[in-house]
Amino acid sequence: MDFSLLWKEISTTVDQALDAFLPHTDEQLPKIHEAMRYSVFAGGKRIRPLLLVLAHNLFSSRWARCVPVACALELIHTYSLIHDDLPAMDDDDYRRGKLTAHKLYGEAMAILSGDALLTLAFALLSGEERFENEFYLAYKLEVPPEVKLQVIGEIAAAAGVKGMIAGQVLDLEMEGQIPDLATLENINKRKTGSLILAAVQSGARLAGATNAQIQLLGNYASLLGRGFQIVDDLLDVEGNEEKMGKKKGMDIKRNKATIVSLYGLAKAKELRDKLYKDAINALSLFEDDAEALRNLTRFVFYRDY
Amino acid sequence: MDFSLLWKEISTTVDQALDAFLPHTDEQLPKIHEAMRYSVFAGGKRIRPLLLVLAHNLFSSRWARCVPVACALELIHTYSLIHDDLPAMDDDDYRRGKLTAHKLYGEAMAILSGDALLTLAFALLSGEERFENEFYLAYKLEVPPEVKLQVIGEIAAAAGVKGMIAGQVLDLEMEGQIPDLATLENINKRKTGSLILAAVQSGARLAGATNAQIQLLGNYASLLGRGFQIVDDLLDVEGNEEKMGKKKGMDIKRNKATIVSLYGLAKAKELRDKLYKDAINALSLFEDDAEALRNLTRFVFYRDY
Repeated sequence: MDFSLLWKEISTTVDQALDAFLPHTDEQLPKIHEAMRYSVFAGGKRIRPLLLVLAHNLFSSRWARCVPVACALELIHTYSLIHDDLPAMDDDDYRRGKLTAHKLYGEAMAILSGDALLTLAFALLSGEERFENEFYLAYKLEVPPEVKLQVIGEIAAAAGVKGMIAGQVLDLEMEGQIPDLATLENINKRKTGSLILAAVQSGARLAGATNAQIQLLGNYASLLGRGFQIVDDLLDVEGNEEKMGKKKGMDIKRNKATIVSLYGLAKAKELRDKLYKDAINALSLFEDDAEALRNLTRFVFYRDY
Repeated sequence: MDFSLLWKEISTTVDQALDAFLPHTDEQLPKIHEAMRYSVFAGGKRIRPLLLVLAHNLFSSRWARCVPVACALELIHTYSLIHDDLPAMDDDDYRRGKLTAHKLYGEAMAILSGDALLTLAFALLSGEERFENEFYLAYKLEVPPEVKLQVIGEIAAAAGVKGMIAGQVLDLEMEGQIPDLATLENINKRKTGSLILAAVQSGARLAGATNAQIQLLGNYASLLGRGFQIVDDLLDVEGNEEKMGKKKGMDIKRNKATIVSLYGLAKAKELRDKLYKDAINALSLFEDDAEALRNLTRFVFYRDY
């Protein structure tokens, strides 16, 4: 089966929903609304929303109820990129071939638009804020309040000071140092892995999966998160600059230690291939139901952008 | 009755709970944990927690269940101060007589600690994240899931791009300009008023108040929020520097328009007195039950720090 149609359908729906949930530029504060929209629609691959929906679809095909959560994950991911790009952090001028938020809108607006995206994510997850659009209904009506709260707790923990933010702190502290593999894997697990894990587990939870099933998928998601970061590091050496919208060699230029710089291309690819195999194996219990997720997994591990 | 004992009890409990909910400095990331704690324990008056609990107490005396929400409000308030103080925003070196977070820990850590406090607030509100302490139990067990979600939605909206963040954006955009009273009141309503409104209304909601009662208290809270900001502006002219922990005259030095600078001390005090009277009147229906809240209201309007 060709999964590109399903992917397209999911990511188009998520983009339409993001457009509906984000404040419009004709409202009172055009500049910050524009800044929020600019970063959200700057060409993200929507990997977290896709993971959420495909993990959900292992247990149920009614994925409309996932859409607000998919949007919340993408908002949180986007906020983290805006703040990471700031001069005080990684000081990046470009991302995905476009100027970063602070280059275009100034630092104050970049910080505030990140704050606003993070806050909007939780407003959406509450199911309470009155967003008058078709993308909110299924989540509001079909998802039990207890499950909404579990998802909020899971995502807040993943994005928080023991998850994603810890990753960024450790990353900043590591600058100029040479970490060992365990340290590097710990940084990646938090910075990249935790939100990917939350996406997969929340998806299953929204579909009514049991705790055991959610746990099982957690193993898959952890392997995927580890692979995701190694592929990012490989792309910095071998990626398609045009498709990536950024120059290669940035990690080397910045003297940033990665698994590739520490162990070389061959070893890094070996590890990637092993993680890919393990991730696919972790889905074996789901048999044919996991075909779409396997397909996405293959994309994540062998993409060229 | 002397309410200072009740205030003391509430703010001591909130401080103990904040200490229990915040990550400890002996955990993995000492620096950001220290930065988070530094700003949270930098001498805030805990007005929002007090408002929440006293609004709750109009309907029920079982205020233990308010404590995590009170903490969440204080975390959100603190995050907003950290980010507002950044060089790209108001560029403040001192707050409450102490160095601001970015002066002490650097800009990156200040931005990230703000992000972490905001995220921790929602983790707490979910009632899901496993915080193993006595301050979480009553909220977890006594508050129905639907009410938790309403509170999350209310607080996220108040802190978001149509509430507190809008206020900061408008404030930054207004620099060097002379706004009219309506514009100034609009900024204050969002920047200060929206979280105060959320505190009062969430408190009532947690106690099981009806929508009509919550609405009614909203009128009170809006008057209080307006007064709160005018008093802040008055303190910049007439406050007790030692108690405030900051120099007076900062608004004038910065050429910042306030109600005092636009209309003079006498007019500003007249407006404050009128708002105070109206706020007290808005509580009349609650008769004796509102004595503690009236007392806090008097403090907010006539404090000297």
